[in-house]
Amino acid sequence: MNSTLSTLVNHQVRLASRPVGMVKAENWAFTEEPVAEPAPGTVLVKTLQLSLDPAMRGWLNDGKSYIPPVGIGEVMRAGGIGRVIASKDPAFATGDVVSGLLGVQEYCQSAAGLPGSRSLQKIDLRLGTPAQWLNVFGMPGMTAYFGLKDVGLPKAGQTLVVSGAAGAVGQTVGQLARIWGMRVVGIAGGQAKCDWVVKELGFDACIDYKGGSVREGLKAHCPKGVDIYFDNVGGEILDHVLAKLAPKARIVICGAISQYNNLTAVQGPKNYMSLLVNRARMEGFVIFDYTDRFPQAIAELAGYIRDGRLKSKEDIVEGGVAVFPQTLNKLFAGENFGKLVLRVAADD
Amino acid sequence: MNSTLSTLVNHQVRLASRPVGMVKAENWAFTEEPVAEPAPGTVLVKTLQLSLDPAMRGWLNDGKSYIPPVGIGEVMRAGGIGRVIASKDPAFATGDVVSGLLGVQEYCQSAAGLPGSRSLQKIDLRLGTPAQWLNVFGMPGMTAYFGLKDVGLPKAGQTLVVSGAAGAVGQTVGQLARIWGMRVVGIAGGQAKCDWVVKELGFDACIDYKGGSVREGLKAHCPKGVDIYFDNVGGEILDHVLAKLAPKARIVICGAISQYNNLTAVQGPKNYMSLLVNRARMEGFVIFDYTDRFPQAIAELAGYIRDGRLKSKEDIVEGGVAVFPQTLNKLFAGENFGKLVLRVAADD
Repeated sequence: MNSTLSTLVNHQVRLASRPVGMVKAENWAFTEEPVAEPAPGTVLVKTLQLSLDPAMRGWLNDGKSYIPPVGIGEVMRAGGIGRVIASKDPAFATGDVVSGLLGVQEYCQSAAGLPGSRSLQKIDLRLGTPAQWLNVFGMPGMTAYFGLKDVGLPKAGQTLVVSGAAGAVGQTVGQLARIWGMRVVGIAGGQAKCDWVVKELGFDACIDYKGGSVREGLKAHCPKGVDIYFDNVGGEILDHVLAKLAPKARIVICGAISQYNNLTAVQGPKNYMSLLVNRARMEGFVIFDYTDRFPQAIAELAGYIRDGRLKSKEDIVEGGVAVFPQTLNKLFAGENFGKLVLRVAADD
Repeated sequence: MNSTLSTLVNHQVRLASRPVGMVKAENWAFTEEPVAEPAPGTVLVKTLQLSLDPAMRGWLNDGKSYIPPVGIGEVMRAGGIGRVIASKDPAFATGDVVSGLLGVQEYCQSAAGLPGSRSLQKIDLRLGTPAQWLNVFGMPGMTAYFGLKDVGLPKAGQTLVVSGAAGAVGQTVGQLARIWGMRVVGIAGGQAKCDWVVKELGFDACIDYKGGSVREGLKAHCPKGVDIYFDNVGGEILDHVLAKLAPKARIVICGAISQYNNLTAVQGPKNYMSLLVNRARMEGFVIFDYTDRFPQAIAELAGYIRDGRLKSKEDIVEGGVAVFPQTLNKLFAGENFGKLVLRVAADD
């Protein structure tokens, strides 16, 4: 056994019980395990940064979905960036930086049955920082790119509205829509976020849902109606946008963060019959269906970043896996500003 | 002046006030007018039969929609079949049978500004009866054909569910889906309607929403999930079907009759996030967008009727325009069995 590894302890966060409504401290258990030498064909990865995503709330619920729920007692599922610190897989060398489902833990062994198995991909830090690899080059960026391009069907000159505009997905959706010639109106919570997406990211306008009327904002900023609505939030905002659809509008259902912690049923869109009147469409997608095309999308996004046409903002929280529970809840309070990332280790 | 015409009286039903919730007797006014000689370039049509449709409820509401609302004091809008009894338009001869927006009245003059203007089309009674021209060869048939073909995108071997299965649109949707190779499950109210769509129309199964659980019915009859849901009713049934979608499912939003008389807001589909999980789509359409293709659709449907592969059922109510108010309300109570038609005059 490698003597260095034998001194390491892997701190982990596991799901202790299924939350009802908001996730509480008692739903999590902190555990620690010794770190083992990687088995033949696997690698040992040290977690650098973890991605905290609204989708995590769904993974905690029992029931059929696009991926199985996290089991009680299992290490919480999380995408992350890590460094290979020991390898018995010829595809990886010690020192490689990788992306994958590392889980909320300090070390991850890429063996079958463990989080991270079959999910590791080498990443190139010359393209972006680890946090950018969890944002614009990671799932949020891919979600923005394919949701907008393949489901939203962007057309130059038309109007796009995106909710969660300062969030991980929303910031890239709005900027891509601008690059592709659309008029872009964001919806975000608070003046600081609204100012940022307009002044820094170049959105045409942004509606502060905490500070004013979304209905009036849409009326003012979308005089010809909404051609694409990229929805990250659901709830009342979805209804307001439904009431302002342009003919042949496309609503991309990406998320419904306003509804994820509801104790009772989700609030359905009361104005959905606007789809009929406007010959419009509401469509969902799952980003895992597009993995074959990730490399091309990453290359295109890297080009925009290089040209300065695309920016990214990450909200990196310090404190390691110990602060995972309270950090996750920032998402549902809308307290993050940019893609929420948890730093687990400095890249030493 | 033609002496025969001068003796005729045109009984009409006009909108007296906008209904809130269910339409009541007081919302209508009965009027009568003398019948005038047609002006040059117009024809005078004697109404034979009128089409009574769920969409009529929407026309009574103020507000922007795909067509303007019926104005207070105006003759109620209605499609119908009539006979030309006097013509000063070289395109029509006395005796021609025509289809158009005749309005709820006994006589209609095809002049600008009156119902029926620019809407008259000669029909061929060798293809079907006047009632069939209001059903399978009329708006319901066109709605079924284009909604299923262009929005639903039918695929042989997949499963279609249609609500309002014994209604005007539903009966044709289900039969066309069968003809095009799909497995078809109807949803209807009452055993008689369910038996009819299975035994007479050849649906694979039909769920009686009044007599049992829609959820259990879908579970039993759609083991692989629902690929197309053609929705005429909205409300809870839409939610039950959303919970049973197959991947890449298409929901065709044709109507929401369960919600049209709601005093408060429409009930939105609580399970709409199933669209995301199943990469599914919910889409509306307006049949007036497809008028250019009506002749081809009618020819195709006439072929199926001739071959005995497509049947139609009309519920013809006697009593003329005087019974229009109570007859319309049969639709919202689900009391009609087949396409609801009001006979205004025997074709004498």
